[in-house]
Amino acid sequence: MTITITAFERSPDGGMGLSRDVRVRWALEELGQPYDVRLVSFAALKEPAYRAMQPFGQIPAYTEGDLVLFETGSIILHLAEQHEGLLPRDADGRSRAITWMFAAIGTIEPPILDLATAKFAEGREPWTEQRLPLIEARIHARLQELADYLGDADWLDGDFSAGDLMMVHVLQRLKPSGLLDKHPILAAYVARGEARPAYQRAFAAQLAINAPRG
Amino acid sequence: MTITITAFERSPDGGMGLSRDVRVRWALEELGQPYDVRLVSFAALKEPAYRAMQPFGQIPAYTEGDLVLFETGSIILHLAEQHEGLLPRDADGRSRAITWMFAAIGTIEPPILDLATAKFAEGREPWTEQRLPLIEARIHARLQELADYLGDADWLDGDFSAGDLMMVHVLQRLKPSGLLDKHPILAAYVARGEARPAYQRAFAAQLAINAPRG
Repeated sequence: MTITITAFERSPDGGMGLSRDVRVRWALEELGQPYDVRLVSFAALKEPAYRAMQPFGQIPAYTEGDLVLFETGSIILHLAEQHEGLLPRDADGRSRAITWMFAAIGTIEPPILDLATAKFAEGREPWTEQRLPLIEARIHARLQELADYLGDADWLDGDFSAGDLMMVHVLQRLKPSGLLDKHPILAAYVARGEARPAYQRAFAAQLAINAPRG
Repeated sequence: MTITITAFERSPDGGMGLSRDVRVRWALEELGQPYDVRLVSFAALKEPAYRAMQPFGQIPAYTEGDLVLFETGSIILHLAEQHEGLLPRDADGRSRAITWMFAAIGTIEPPILDLATAKFAEGREPWTEQRLPLIEARIHARLQELADYLGDADWLDGDFSAGDLMMVHVLQRLKPSGLLDKHPILAAYVARGEARPAYQRAFAAQLAINAPRG
């Protein structure tokens, strides 16, 4: 059955690869699965037709025959269970990889989202300049814990997994801020993720849509 | 094999049931699985012995023989795959229930965490009083979308699932703020969750540890 994901008609990041469809594109490339993309405008995300598929008006939504899914973690877990390559074969290793998927979303991403909210939703508020160091300190605390855990390992738990894919993409959102540079262990970890051919293909595919037109 | 979870020696909420171990206790009760609890002090959460098990010093951590897991979503998914009762039997329904687990953590919880951060970490900052309405507006927007989706259904997708369990517990965190009262559909949804005998047992078990001593 054809897999279709939704993506921004024009990503707010102008092709940096930070929009969440890239996570799913990357997973599909790792698993060697072809997919179609349906581009959606910001206006269309608010319309009932889209909300019927994705109640929160976010991208990506995923369709495969009659099945409709959303949330990148859920989509990637669904794909990783059907096709080999993103989860270990042994049950314990599989559960640990899924732990890292949830840790990326539940523990590492929230303070990173906070930074984005401060800059974009509250960028003109008088308090934002004073708040930024507090938010950055919370991010650094989590990054330090993650770096302490990772140490000199290549990936979070053995081979590259869906947990690494999610974590690398969550960390990539920090690149424009420069915060990642203070954690060389994590900067190198992100670079390892970005060096994977499947990531390169996913990045190129979104860039073909989002690159600034000359 | 014996299941052991960690919990706060003394929960910051004084027994309201909002600490994350309650999610896992609830899942274990729904599935009829016995478990042990290891109580941990705030100081112990920072120690290397605990960090070796849970790199971010959070509760709950989960052990079952040699397997160590963390993140409530991951623990509950692991349990729901081994024991019947929290995921539909059909593959598509199962993937949709997992979508709601991720939506609880990835979409609904972040603005709710923001409110907690504003009140506790930034409670004395001069800007917090002005920021609270902005944070509350972001929470209400998500709650409205969730309520629009839920409508007059009892649960998010057919029978009660691990997705509902996660979502109800995430929403419960809003109870002290009164924000949930403005969304009667969701207040009733949370009440349905709390009325489940398994929830009642989980709540009583944490209360026995955390109730204020007279």
